Amino acid sequence: MPSKTTKKPGAKQNSPSGFESRLADVARDVEALLQTLLGRDLEHGETARPARLLQAMQYAALAGGKRLRPFLVVESARLFGVKPQQAMMAAAAVECVHCYSLVHDDLPAMDNDALRRGRPTTHKAFDDATAILAGDALLTVAFDFLARKETHADPAVRIALVTELARAAGLGGMVGGQLLDLAAEGRFGKVPEGVIGEETVIMLESMKTGALIRAACAMGAILGNASEDARQSLDFYGYALGQAFQIADDLLDLEGDPKKLGKKTKKDAAAGKATFIAVLGVEGARERLAILIATAEAALKDFGKKAETLRETARFVAERQA
Amino acid sequence: MPSKTTKKPGAKQNSPSGFESRLADVARDVEALLQTLLGRDLEHGETARPARLLQAMQYAALAGGKRLRPFLVVESARLFGVKPQQAMMAAAAVECVHCYSLVHDDLPAMDNDALRRGRPTTHKAFDDATAILAGDALLTVAFDFLARKETHADPAVRIALVTELARAAGLGGMVGGQLLDLAAEGRFGKVPEGVIGEETVIMLESMKTGALIRAACAMGAILGNASEDARQSLDFYGYALGQAFQIADDLLDLEGDPKKLGKKTKKDAAAGKATFIAVLGVEGARERLAILIATAEAALKDFGKKAETLRETARFVAERQA
Repeated sequence: MPSKTTKKPGAKQNSPSGFESRLADVARDVEALLQTLLGRDLEHGETARPARLLQAMQYAALAGGKRLRPFLVVESARLFGVKPQQAMMAAAAVECVHCYSLVHDDLPAMDNDALRRGRPTTHKAFDDATAILAGDALLTVAFDFLARKETHADPAVRIALVTELARAAGLGGMVGGQLLDLAAEGRFGKVPEGVIGEETVIMLESMKTGALIRAACAMGAILGNASEDARQSLDFYGYALGQAFQIADDLLDLEGDPKKLGKKTKKDAAAGKATFIAVLGVEGARERLAILIATAEAALKDFGKKAETLRETARFVAERQA
Repeated sequence: MPSKTTKKPGAKQNSPSGFESRLADVARDVEALLQTLLGRDLEHGETARPARLLQAMQYAALAGGKRLRPFLVVESARLFGVKPQQAMMAAAAVECVHCYSLVHDDLPAMDNDALRRGRPTTHKAFDDATAILAGDALLTVAFDFLARKETHADPAVRIALVTELARAAGLGGMVGGQLLDLAAEGRFGKVPEGVIGEETVIMLESMKTGALIRAACAMGAILGNASEDARQSLDFYGYALGQAFQIADDLLDLEGDPKKLGKKTKKDAAAGKATFIAVLGVEGARERLAILIATAEAALKDFGKKAETLRETARFVAERQA
């Protein structure tokens, strides 16, 4: 029961339905915006919009899901008085990058997954070439979205968002983490036993999954013209949350219900993935998760009550069943 | 002898060595900048820089070549008084996008090419997963480069560059063109005979190859704060040049020397590619090339002597042997 260890007795809580309906609201809004951005807006232009490619992009990006990263952009921005609607373009951009990464990670040349969110993965529903290109196009369009006036009136803010997202998604972030993940599996040569320890796992997980979660929080701070102190607090929150998210994911892979998750479980151990569970054991991972959630909550102390939704987000990440 | 049809008798010319040394200078400078940007700058940071991924990015981006797109950024910007060094970051960003597209296009799931510029393609030198990720990282870092202060002091200019590059590279440009190219080969279902005509070829080639060439010119205009009229002239030049480049490429695939080209030739006909040669025949393609070069040169008339290097670029594109 991970919930026991992650609820701080003294913490104030909205009713669960309050938090969950807030999460669902943002998910619905970002889905609607992506539908517009990847639909009406992209269907027409000076040049052809190959229907097959657009359909694959829509298939990959409009598959529902919790939309955690957009929620983090919106809730982080809200700390600084930015209205959810004003954070929505940046939120949609982060989600496009997340969705592209799933499409490429699922490819036969990478993790070779056939199922995601209960549906065939994009390359299964289309084909490998279309999936590669749909991923490329989703990544590209994310920067197009960030550059639009609707994202923020000030070009300097938009440029800061571009920098944040590009750094989080690239060599030193998500893509680099995916490579380290494959390397740890022994894909580029046998990994000597005992070489992959806690430090390696923290590094690769914080890049592969953590970087984009952390960037989502940072982008909220950028949209809100946050002070340096506030940025750092939020960054610390995002860092802890990103690791917590990954541990929860690893635990779900081991213990979760494949029906609820909409994908195969117990894949990590089979693939010899370098996970927190592999280095800490199940109980050790659960304890680490609790510490990280407490760390994430503590990082928000200067924001007071305003940050309650972000605190609940941390608890939600630890307790989620799917 | 395409040269006969493409040299306008009245056109003034620098000595061939003058143009070629200018082209070589920019190629050398962009190579040096990419070496720095993908070397020193990327090797160090807060997070790990997986050596294998960085090496694959360097392998893909530091393979020499004419660096035509960077040259177009530099020479277009120069029309408006921008010094080459001030256009170099944008030039490097365009080249990263070009190089990423080659890496992904060469993948087994796409065009399945083993050789490029006389060397094994990136997925042959590394592996498919590393090549996919190196392409992703090169695309991503291009936007990081554009967002940097060194690219231009004014964030509004940097944002305009991001928009231009993202649109040219995405669904309605390069990536969309690559999908149309695969579709025309019959990869997603048999294409009824006679369906692919001149219009289809113009559309797919102008997206697949033309969009980025056109964007390189547009980015020069953006850096130079060009007037609307100047932008349109340059855009017309870029459009004609992009098509001319592709026809010259198609002719080289048919008639070129594989040794000089550093890759296999006669692949297009074998793959059933929808090329200008397939719809116009060799002579028809050669005539179209001459018309496009004349069109490109004419588009620059308002720039007078200042645009001589861009005119020579057009002639160079038509006459190149590799």
